[in-house]
Amino acid sequence: MTFRDKLETIIAKNNSLLCVGLDPDLEKLPKHLLETKDPIFEFNKAIIDATHDLVCVYKPNIAFYEAEGIEGLQSLKKTIEYLQQTYPEIPLLLDAKRGDIGNTAAKYAKAAFEYWNADATTVYPHLGLDSLIPFFEYKDKMTIVLVKTSNKDSGMFQDLPVDGEPYYLRMAEKIKTWSYDNIGIFVGATYPKEMKGIRQLFPDHIFLSAGLGAQQAEIAAIVKAGINARGSGIMFNASRSILYASSGSDFADKARTKTLETRDAINQYRKKS
Amino acid sequence: MTFRDKLETIIAKNNSLLCVGLDPDLEKLPKHLLETKDPIFEFNKAIIDATHDLVCVYKPNIAFYEAEGIEGLQSLKKTIEYLQQTYPEIPLLLDAKRGDIGNTAAKYAKAAFEYWNADATTVYPHLGLDSLIPFFEYKDKMTIVLVKTSNKDSGMFQDLPVDGEPYYLRMAEKIKTWSYDNIGIFVGATYPKEMKGIRQLFPDHIFLSAGLGAQQAEIAAIVKAGINARGSGIMFNASRSILYASSGSDFADKARTKTLETRDAINQYRKKS
Repeated sequence: MTFRDKLETIIAKNNSLLCVGLDPDLEKLPKHLLETKDPIFEFNKAIIDATHDLVCVYKPNIAFYEAEGIEGLQSLKKTIEYLQQTYPEIPLLLDAKRGDIGNTAAKYAKAAFEYWNADATTVYPHLGLDSLIPFFEYKDKMTIVLVKTSNKDSGMFQDLPVDGEPYYLRMAEKIKTWSYDNIGIFVGATYPKEMKGIRQLFPDHIFLSAGLGAQQAEIAAIVKAGINARGSGIMFNASRSILYASSGSDFADKARTKTLETRDAINQYRKKS
Repeated sequence: MTFRDKLETIIAKNNSLLCVGLDPDLEKLPKHLLETKDPIFEFNKAIIDATHDLVCVYKPNIAFYEAEGIEGLQSLKKTIEYLQQTYPEIPLLLDAKRGDIGNTAAKYAKAAFEYWNADATTVYPHLGLDSLIPFFEYKDKMTIVLVKTSNKDSGMFQDLPVDGEPYYLRMAEKIKTWSYDNIGIFVGATYPKEMKGIRQLFPDHIFLSAGLGAQQAEIAAIVKAGINARGSGIMFNASRSILYASSGSDFADKARTKTLETRDAINQYRKKS
């Protein structure tokens, strides 16, 4: 089953475009978990159990695990195994933002898709097509290219004008010519105008968007700009607002409440008007 | 001691601009090592022992370790500990090509500089300054930004014209305005013309270059273009040509011979003419 099929099935089943980012930060975890043997895993497990019927994908950002070294990566491995054994219908997106040349790119692709067993991952496209082919060759997996990021300085280089067009758009136009049907597109949720232009270029691609604002108005703008003609085809990530909705022993319940709210806030704007 | 000081000391001591890339590939390791408990570590240790007086830095590319999962990363940890205990004067450059936004970038920086204890690392600059500050804040460490890569498709996006100048150069000009003195510059060894222009822009920065050709002529061009006014200030990486000079039990001896040859080939062109 391809990532796209798996994603579309769960989007329909859970009526959700919400991606929950599993980005555990030891400094922010509920205190009582720090006494357990594997706080990161226990936290992730509780979040997954509390939200699995409300999401379309889980997205661990590997940086949060790497910061804790091999021990952190062991918690990631355990989390992935738990997710895939317990809720096999939910895809796993490993947010790793990798990218290197030829033979090294193949090693990163092997790590993401074989060792971590991710259904999808994120990459930098800036080195060009030959650096990405080792990822694209995993046909059932999806490789999501960073076209426009959500941060404040995102425009510093990504918006540089190339023949009157921003660099990110020129890059996107080139990506569109690549003959692989398992390429996903990343656009930050803080740039609805840019999202609209990129969605027009890729009407049928799967998108990932992160940095969803807490304001309804912002959600309205980015959802309307990002969905495809069927009101779908995109994953909206939320991490901190859900993971740290409470720092007490009720964190999982509060995470569920916040997940439900966010899912429904997104769904409100999924009908194309 | 800053990375720059550590590097300049060892460049002088070993009379070498050569960086050896520790990129162990299980499929290419000498067969007899595969019977040991930790083939990757044994291989790295032998290479380090055979070449430590001929190099200025070791550069493991973390992709090769990640491809083997947590076990591979354990071999990397062991390699780094061995290097830093046995040859503390040789800096460690962790080639990880990371990059993410704010809070996540801080986690990657923590992983590279604290967990892995690297003296320097490589990053993507394409997300802009705010994504790099968490790295630059490690003042004694060096963060090397990818300006122009060595691969064939490197120009696909990096050479797009911005007001008549290639994108990578425009990016470099902006990087030059950043007020941190621990920024390094990466330029692929396959692009001597581009190297020359970028070196002119950054006369005093430390450079890293990879993809050194086996041809003397190529070495001449890239060394002349990459060195600073004192015939120094750059690390030239070689990996496969050294690591796999022999696949037999004499691999370490042959690696030493090749390292010596490559160091001397580079030194031949270090005098500014």
